[in-house]
Formats: sequence, C-alpha cells, structure tokens
Amino acid sequence: MPISAHNAQAIIDHAEAKAREMGLAAIIAILDEGGHLKAFHRMDGAVLGSIDIAMRKARTAVLFQCNSEDVWDYLKPGAPAPHLELSNGGLAPYGGGIALKCPNGGLAGSLGVSGGSIEQDTKIAKAGLAAFEATLR
Amino acid sequence: MPISAHNAQAIIDHAEAKAREMGLAAIIAILDEGGHLKAFHRMDGAVLGSIDIAMRKARTAVLFQCNSEDVWDYLKPGAPAPHLELSNGGLAPYGGGIALKCPNGGLAGSLGVSGGSIEQDTKIAKAGLAAFEATLR
Amino acid sequence: MPISAHNAQAIIDHAEAKAREMGLAAIIAILDEGGHLKAFHRMDGAVLGSIDIAMRKARTAVLFQCNSEDVWDYLKPGAPAPHLELSNGGLAPYGGGIALKCPNGGLAGSLGVSGGSIEQDTKIAKAGLAAFEATLR
Amino acid sequence: MPISAHNAQAIIDHAEAKAREMGLAAIIAILDEGGHLKAFHRMDGAVLGSIDIAMRKARTAVLFQCNSEDVWDYLKPGAPAPHLELSNGGLAPYGGGIALKCPNGGLAGSLGVSGGSIEQDTKIAKAGLAAFEATLR
Repeated sequence: MPISAHNAQAIIDHAEAKAREMGLAAIIAILDEGGHLKAFHRMDGAVLGSIDIAMRKARTAVLFQCNSEDVWDYLKPGAPAPHLELSNGGLAPYGGGIALKCPNGGLAGSLGVSGGSIEQDTKIAKAGLAAFEATLR
Repeated sequence: MPISAHNAQAIIDHAEAKAREMGLAAIIAILDEGGHLKAFHRMDGAVLGSIDIAMRKARTAVLFQCNSEDVWDYLKPGAPAPHLELSNGGLAPYGGGIALKCPNGGLAGSLGVSGGSIEQDTKIAKAGLAAFEATLR
Repeated sequence: MPISAHNAQAIIDHAEAKAREMGLAAIIAILDEGGHLKAFHRMDGAVLGSIDIAMRKARTAVLFQCNSEDVWDYLKPGAPAPHLELSNGGLAPYGGGIALKCPNGGLAGSLGVSGGSIEQDTKIAKAGLAAFEATLR
Repeated sequence: MPISAHNAQAIIDHAEAKAREMGLAAIIAILDEGGHLKAFHRMDGAVLGSIDIAMRKARTAVLFQCNSEDVWDYLKPGAPAPHLELSNGGLAPYGGGIALKCPNGGLAGSLGVSGGSIEQDTKIAKAGLAAFEATLR
C-alpha cells in the first residue's frame, strides 16, 4: 500500500510540531514506495542545503528499506562495500531517513528530515514515523 | 519577501480543493524566489510523470517572472528564440505555472500545477494564486 | 591568443554601458577559447533564467566559431542537421552570442548576452565585440 | 537584501588586488542568496580546474550560511554525517568560501576563491569579505 496524501500530511504536521518544540527550522521530504516525491515541507528559516539532504536521506531509506544510517554498516571503513555511497546518485548514510512500512511488512514509502544535528533530525523523523503509524491504526 | 510556509500551505489547500471540485488528482509544487522547493503536494492518483512537470512549470515561471505559458511567445515556430526551451535544464512553456509577486512588485516565488489538461491545470493554479494573494491582505 | 581578463573587463564595461543606455538589465558571460568561463556579470534586476541563456549563447558561439544565430541555418526545418540543437548539452541558435577572433583569425573566446529581446541582446553583444576589438588595436 | 552588482564588483576588485599582491592568479565567484551566479572573474594564468572549485566553495557557503571549511566538522572521519559532501551536487568542505551577511543578519550571497593553497585562497576570500562589508557602511 503506497503512502497516501493523508498519511503524508499527518507526518509533516507532527514532524513540524516536533521541530518547532525543539526550536528548529526543519525540512521534511516524503517519498512513495518507488522513491518519487509525495510531499515536501520547508519551514521558514531552514538553510537551502538541507533541501537536498532531506530528500537524499528519504531516498536512501526507501531504496534499501531501512533507516538511512543503517547503510553506514555496509560502506564504513573495513566494511564489505566501500563507496556504496556513490551508488544511486549519492546516498546519505546518516540519521534522519526512515522507511515507512505497512502493518503487513510491505513498503509504503519513506521520510527524510534535515535542519538540525543528526540527532535532532532523527528525533523529528521519529515523530513523523509515529504519526504515520498512528494513521494506520 | 520570499514566500513563507504559511503562504505555501494556503496555496496548496486551495489548489487541492479546486482540483477535488473538478474531480482531478493534481500535483502542486511551490518554489521560493530563487527557484528552490518550498512545498510540494501530490494528491492520490496523480501520475508520476506530472511530478517533474509541476516542478518544471513552477521553475519556468520563477526564472522568467511570468506565467509559464508566456514563454511560448519567445520560442514558438517563427519566434526569435527557437529552442529556448532547452535552456535552464528544460522549460515548460505551457499553462500551469505562475510567478508569485509581492504587493511591492518583488518576486516571492512561484507555483506549478500538473495532473489534468493544460486548461484544468491553469484553473487550479489560479486558485492557488488567489489563495496566495488572500494571505497578503 | 586566449582572451585576457583585461579584454573581458572591457567587454563587460561596454556591454553594460550599452544595456544601461537602452534601459535594460543584462547578463554578460565571457568564455575562453576552450569554452571555459572567463568572466560573468549580472546587472541588478536581470531575471534568473537569463543566466543560463547568456552562457549558452556564448557556448554556442565558441563551439562553432560563429555568431550563435548562425547555427540556426544548420538545424532549422528542412536544414541538413535536424536537432543539432540537442548536441553539446543544448545549443542556443538565436542572437546574442558572438565568437571573438584575434587579428590573425585565431579564436580568442566568445561572449553571450541575455536580458532583453533577441534584437536588444544582439546590440549589447555587438557593443561588447567592439570593445574587444578596441583592446586589440 | 540580495547582493548587488556594485557589491560584487568591490569584492572582485579587492580580492584580485590581494591575489596580485600575493603573486597568485585566482578565480573569484560570487553567488546571490539563492546560489545563482552574480559575478565571476578569472585572472590570467589560473588553472581551469579552479573554476569549478571556486564556484563549489561559494555554493557550499551559501547553502549552509557559513564558511565552506566549517562543513568539514559534519563529515570528517568520525563525524555524524559521513559523505554529506555528496549532497547538493558535491560540496567543497575546505577554505575559500564565505557566506555574505547583511547587517541585519540576513543572507546576501557568498563568494568563493580558488587558485592558490587553501590558506592563500582563504586570505583572498577574506579580503573580498572586507570589501563587501565596507560597501555596507
């Protein structure tokens, strides 16, 4: 089941609320299960460089059906796939991208957040994930 | 004055309502005055090919500070700039993209709509423009 | 003899003066004989879409050692090289780009102008060419 | 307030004077607050490879509203965002790019310098920054 516009809006609303609570200007990008843009929201004050980073985190997550930071284990120094990060137009193997799964395990899409530190972006992305899961109940 | 997230949301809400009223699934892309993505909304059922078209219409409008279809006059058969459409990564010289201007005449950004016929997209884009202008009052 | 920074500045100064005299905000791009950017000047108020167009006209001129509009004869309807405009990353087969030649006939570089109508851009480019030729005397 | 052609020329003049004083042939690229080229100057003798580096440093600075070398802290070995340098078309996380801010803190644009060592490029860029700040007084 691909992500719906309703799901996407819920993710954006909650991720934005979390960012605002943390005093941050974040960018939230949401992709469908084929990696195509479904929704995008840039809060006022976010730096331009974060547009591509949010999209890239979301793309990394949906392409490998995992959290963006999990890709690091494959390409880090000594790992079996050096320079995997150059594939697919350039991956973002750090936190802030999350694959969205349906209750049956199928892929629904992904979200990517950028604007703060990696830790902050990850927190905001998790708020978005929680909102997505709430829409499924 | 660049477009705000508040402006952008108003545009999306009204353009989507118009599309729904017309029985269409549309995509709405909103760019800031430098052509960077500010907000994006893809209604359920819109074809994937319309993602790039909506963005391209919005880009055409903001780059030339006009409606996307106005660029046609420069590049149509017999016009003075044949193949201008190849510039700037590829223009979309047909309706659905509108430059957003501030009351003082300055550029605020642009919006692009794709999903229906050019005539339908233009109507939806105009609903978005009206919403933008209402936020300025 | 490749174009010098001194030549380039003279071109920009005179082209800008001409544009100002005509009440236009123009963009002037200057390339060396290998097609690499030598100098660039964007007058305040020029539209963003003209950045790429000025560069593209200059590139068309230097790649074929002619005026950018001369390329039209090769690719216009019925001409022997249909869609030549798609080569080299996209040509600009309309006025405003001029190849710069040394007195001995060697290529020095090119200039491209965008900001007004094709006729206006061509006039401004010719003012730039005259300035270049004056530096050679 | 976006950077003006007047600001840009002052930056180029002073950065070039500094480079000349240091016996270097430098390239100076100036972008507006949306990352679009405003002005560009290549001194005679600068290597072609520096064209893209100067632009990339300027782009890195304007996208993240900082000095280009500051981005290194996010992507260096052990830092939280490995391979961030692949984002935004490729970043330049080393010295020579500086974001230009208005007195009110708003972004005006950026400049990027390449041609010498990173230390030399940084010195030349700082001369450009000083010239920009002088135009604001």
